[in-house]
Amino acid sequence: MKTQPTSLRVRLPAFLFVTEVTFVALYAAFVTYDEHTDARFQTNQTNPMQNAVYKDYPFFADIQVMIFLGFGCLLAFFRLYGFGGMVFNFLTATFAIQWAILVQGYFQFNHDGKIHLGVINLINAEFACAVVLISFGAVLGKTSPLQLLIMALLEVPVFAVTEWVVLKYLKINDAGGSILIHLFACYFGLGVTFVLYRPRLNEGHAKENTSYQSDILSVMGTLFLWVFWPSFNSALTLKGDDQHRAILHTFIGLSASTLTAFALSAMLNKNGKLTMADVQNVTLAGGVTVGASVDMMISPAAAYVLGMMGGTACMLGYKYLSPFLAQRFRIQDQCGIHNLHGLTGLISCTAGICAILMADEEVYGPSLYEIFTHRAPVEGDPKLHELQMLIPDLQPGLGRTAREQALFQVAAVFSTIGLSALGGVLTGFALRLPYFASPCDDCCFDDEPFFEVPPDYDSPLKLSDTVAIEDSAA
Amino acid sequence: MKTQPTSLRVRLPAFLFVTEVTFVALYAAFVTYDEHTDARFQTNQTNPMQNAVYKDYPFFADIQVMIFLGFGCLLAFFRLYGFGGMVFNFLTATFAIQWAILVQGYFQFNHDGKIHLGVINLINAEFACAVVLISFGAVLGKTSPLQLLIMALLEVPVFAVTEWVVLKYLKINDAGGSILIHLFACYFGLGVTFVLYRPRLNEGHAKENTSYQSDILSVMGTLFLWVFWPSFNSALTLKGDDQHRAILHTFIGLSASTLTAFALSAMLNKNGKLTMADVQNVTLAGGVTVGASVDMMISPAAAYVLGMMGGTACMLGYKYLSPFLAQRFRIQDQCGIHNLHGLTGLISCTAGICAILMADEEVYGPSLYEIFTHRAPVEGDPKLHELQMLIPDLQPGLGRTAREQALFQVAAVFSTIGLSALGGVLTGFALRLPYFASPCDDCCFDDEPFFEVPPDYDSPLKLSDTVAIEDSAA
Amino acid sequence: MKTQPTSLRVRLPAFLFVTEVTFVALYAAFVTYDEHTDARFQTNQTNPMQNAVYKDYPFFADIQVMIFLGFGCLLAFFRLYGFGGMVFNFLTATFAIQWAILVQGYFQFNHDGKIHLGVINLINAEFACAVVLISFGAVLGKTSPLQLLIMALLEVPVFAVTEWVVLKYLKINDAGGSILIHLFACYFGLGVTFVLYRPRLNEGHAKENTSYQSDILSVMGTLFLWVFWPSFNSALTLKGDDQHRAILHTFIGLSASTLTAFALSAMLNKNGKLTMADVQNVTLAGGVTVGASVDMMISPAAAYVLGMMGGTACMLGYKYLSPFLAQRFRIQDQCGIHNLHGLTGLISCTAGICAILMADEEVYGPSLYEIFTHRAPVEGDPKLHELQMLIPDLQPGLGRTAREQALFQVAAVFSTIGLSALGGVLTGFALRLPYFASPCDDCCFDDEPFFEVPPDYDSPLKLSDTVAIEDSAA
Repeated sequence: MKTQPTSLRVRLPAFLFVTEVTFVALYAAFVTYDEHTDARFQTNQTNPMQNAVYKDYPFFADIQVMIFLGFGCLLAFFRLYGFGGMVFNFLTATFAIQWAILVQGYFQFNHDGKIHLGVINLINAEFACAVVLISFGAVLGKTSPLQLLIMALLEVPVFAVTEWVVLKYLKINDAGGSILIHLFACYFGLGVTFVLYRPRLNEGHAKENTSYQSDILSVMGTLFLWVFWPSFNSALTLKGDDQHRAILHTFIGLSASTLTAFALSAMLNKNGKLTMADVQNVTLAGGVTVGASVDMMISPAAAYVLGMMGGTACMLGYKYLSPFLAQRFRIQDQCGIHNLHGLTGLISCTAGICAILMADEEVYGPSLYEIFTHRAPVEGDPKLHELQMLIPDLQPGLGRTAREQALFQVAAVFSTIGLSALGGVLTGFALRLPYFASPCDDCCFDDEPFFEVPPDYDSPLKLSDTVAIEDSAA
Repeated sequence: MKTQPTSLRVRLPAFLFVTEVTFVALYAAFVTYDEHTDARFQTNQTNPMQNAVYKDYPFFADIQVMIFLGFGCLLAFFRLYGFGGMVFNFLTATFAIQWAILVQGYFQFNHDGKIHLGVINLINAEFACAVVLISFGAVLGKTSPLQLLIMALLEVPVFAVTEWVVLKYLKINDAGGSILIHLFACYFGLGVTFVLYRPRLNEGHAKENTSYQSDILSVMGTLFLWVFWPSFNSALTLKGDDQHRAILHTFIGLSASTLTAFALSAMLNKNGKLTMADVQNVTLAGGVTVGASVDMMISPAAAYVLGMMGGTACMLGYKYLSPFLAQRFRIQDQCGIHNLHGLTGLISCTAGICAILMADEEVYGPSLYEIFTHRAPVEGDPKLHELQMLIPDLQPGLGRTAREQALFQVAAVFSTIGLSALGGVLTGFALRLPYFASPCDDCCFDDEPFFEVPPDYDSPLKLSDTVAIEDSAA
Repeated sequence: MKTQPTSLRVRLPAFLFVTEVTFVALYAAFVTYDEHTDARFQTNQTNPMQNAVYKDYPFFADIQVMIFLGFGCLLAFFRLYGFGGMVFNFLTATFAIQWAILVQGYFQFNHDGKIHLGVINLINAEFACAVVLISFGAVLGKTSPLQLLIMALLEVPVFAVTEWVVLKYLKINDAGGSILIHLFACYFGLGVTFVLYRPRLNEGHAKENTSYQSDILSVMGTLFLWVFWPSFNSALTLKGDDQHRAILHTFIGLSASTLTAFALSAMLNKNGKLTMADVQNVTLAGGVTVGASVDMMISPAAAYVLGMMGGTACMLGYKYLSPFLAQRFRIQDQCGIHNLHGLTGLISCTAGICAILMADEEVYGPSLYEIFTHRAPVEGDPKLHELQMLIPDLQPGLGRTAREQALFQVAAVFSTIGLSALGGVLTGFALRLPYFASPCDDCCFDDEPFFEVPPDYDSPLKLSDTVAIEDSAA
């Protein structure tokens, strides 16, 4: 028997070993410890409990659970693609994080020609990884592991460049990553799936469905994401009240979108029943919609409204927009990332801009200039001196007005969407190279081409066949 | 085909949207930030790392896992009601927390006509939510989601009033919530199920059983609860050694009840085999029995004995008391909450009273008056001044003796049981209103009336039919 | 019908109640609170937030998840032994921790004839528990719960003595427990399984396989271990930069071994497909290989290389060494612990020794003598005085050179392997006593002898029979 077209025997090891050797070489040449991990930096005035690890690690641990267990279980919802959803997520995430450490290190943590490493880099890299995993959702079940790795290989640098441009030149506020993470990931993923369009899948696919167990597993993934999302949205905010608000708003937003999801799921179903796909996805919309303004003084009620809006937009997207995009625009968005990350991301950005326009010293006190660092007065401005009497650590800013800051946010939204969609389309063309072992249409949503599967893996299917046969015989 | 009697198409969205709009209005009118979430309260003397979020959030995150994943998986033990157990838990918990934030806020966190919000409110609300979820256990599989929401709507205020009365007027010690959470939840749930009595279910129900996968999922829920229970019992204790002891005692108590559960499960089974329901429930009894005295100096050995007593009482309750209550007292307690929360709660309260009676300065030192705040001398007592030399922050108390404090604990137990049982019975009558879509007897323990289920959801059942047919044919 | 040979009805309760009563007696006689849990030790100068619980509890909680959910799910990979894997893990772990608290307390936390208890003891006891659970992996599916408890009963003291000897007399560095945990557990387990050799199982066993669901569950276990392994490896390091490095190295090592595992899994499979057993086990190898040097200044690149080496050794061990050991040396290593803990442990020790030999003040600064405490100058040495000017808290050491320290590490490796293998063999003989209800060869890898199982527990098997029958009929 000759080699299967999807055999990974040569291609996957070749790719992985080359990247591993490259990574080791780059680590050896360019990566070193940062001041919180290097033993030499500890002096007799260093209090070990002041080490940054105690601020960062709890959030990192929560995000780890989201990335590996949350996404892993959530993506395992196909009946015959449970291994694929969970295991390719594991592989892709591990690869993306390592790669992001290097690429983000080059752009953001580069001093004296060295990348300085601590747990904070891992958090940043897991954010980049989340971007890749969201995009993965658009092509779930239709790609080989090699294609996913290539996607990660290309997406991480495009993301890192976008992030660097937006943060360094446009200097925006985006604590929960609504612009940089959700919008970027969404439009990149849509770009990829647009190029990988498979016309035959629009007519439905025999394996494109769930089983009782896979639906339950996927809800567990949702719950892991739901439970730890406050950590995700607050991991990179300022410490103190900012982080506290971010946690509170995320929780409120998620709660509101969850109730909305249940209400709309029953309302839009012709039998008045709940649909598991809605429970798995729409409940999470509030975590995205509060993102861009998550650390601001938007008030708990506004967080609640954002959650409701997110749930509604996401639900309507699943019901009406996704089929339309698939039929008319060749965008087969497998997990509906456009609903959960795109529409909600746009709502979030709009809300963030409103929150920025309304932010003033009356509501925030002098800490306004800590949250909106670029609105702090420029060096030399007497107002800066005055503020520094109140907040000694305040850094000079750019003296932006609220309106200026809002315009930069708008610019960031458009440039992020543009760069990500372009990057996604180009990546899609790269993934079409035959070497990357794309599964045939019939092999989609199926573990069998890529895994040694136990004999019972498709038993529910066979079972219903069996029952059907007997029914017809009776 | 006309609308199913269980259709949620109109009723669920109507209820949820009305409550959501009400919640938003109440949030907008009455909810604001507390001093740890409000940016204006940050001055140049505020150290961000002193923010309360760093004390509270780790415990909150652990409790989140317990509520959504722990209860969610544990309640998914029925073969055909996995969606229901896990998803109705998600819906009910989300609703109960939001509602509890408002109701508890009104009673406990109300200053200047505003509810002041921080993560500490979320912890309190999740405790109220745990109460609802425990009560849910009594009626699992026999209620529509709408009935569960109505139950939460009514139970939360009754709980909040009881909590407020007991804490404000009786002023008791109950760190692990044995009185307020476990006893309240148990007798409320029993009240509800007493009114919702279904005579036909006493003869057994074809769907009232587990599958191999649902049993494993339910054990995972138990493990989530087991692992994080120390955080639950210690979340609201005093910081420092009190919290440390609470963690230690909970762990020891759970360990002891786990070994007891295994021993009795094998001993009381006629084949000498282990029963999964015992592993899922009885192992947790120790977490309840140590509750009322969890932060006191009871000694590790006493925590161990409490765990053993809890496991024994809970196991015997499942074996002998539950069938008796169902047959004679019309109390169909689906998950046996009377065993896991009622009997153990009573043991816990008794132990707490003993610990209070034995508490003296010899064992506790001056911090006796910090743990038992109401035993601190009254304002003006020279003894108070003396103690404040040792503990500068000590607040004046009520000068209660140990015996007086014990009597108040007894009063709290009886008033909690009375209020909760009464509230449960009244709630039960409300749930019988036909509008709330109660499932018919045959539809109990079944996901099909409320969910779009995949075709394989009852495959193990059909399978065994198939096999049976073939066996008889052979 | 007379009692089954595997009935636990008398034996399990008898064993558990005797041990519980003994534990209570020992707790009552010898266990008390440590200075961080005893209320009397709190004075007006004690800051509650300085309590050790806040340093230790987050790590303890993570390790709890690893022990109960991580190991529990991972060991549930057999199709018909899901209850056994998860529930016996729960029972054995709970027992081992309680027992370890007492035994380690006697050796390590014993002052004035009392064992002083805090969360730190629980962390240490969970490490001892991890040792037992790793050894359990060698005999999974072939032992009764009573045999597992006896194994824990015997293994914990042998481990505690070895730990005490190695730490107190050889004074080694082993932050991640590569020597004490992984090597000990591995060779103890191999000793046990060597004595419990079952010749018939070498020919394969009808039930020694996985199902689709059990494979997914087991991957979830892997992910829980993977995600929290940094907490495991860093829980007992020095606070500050040491703990920070331990987290970083563990993450990097795991990432590298994960990519290596995927590459080799596809490469060594004749169809070029991924094998779930590799994903479940080999991905974790890097956590072990970085262990012995995890807190040292080995550089991120070295952690990466260690992860790759670990993944490679572990994979080759599964492919070639395990079958060889089973056929030639009567070592039936069910989960391949020799690959995941033995081979990787040896690599880790070697790397640790190299790191020790290369450690100097140039790289570490004066904190060299904090990490390698035994290399600190002896009392009276003028160099000590000089160092204490830089690090006031520095304790006098033994003045060992790097080479001397390395020799002690080598001695620790050999004495650990010797003691553990000997202990394992003797334990194996004890387990062969007929009283302990060892399952017959046909009953291996099966829940039915020890659990009341639901009717569908072997449905996938029956199903495939059914399908096979129909196929042959067609």
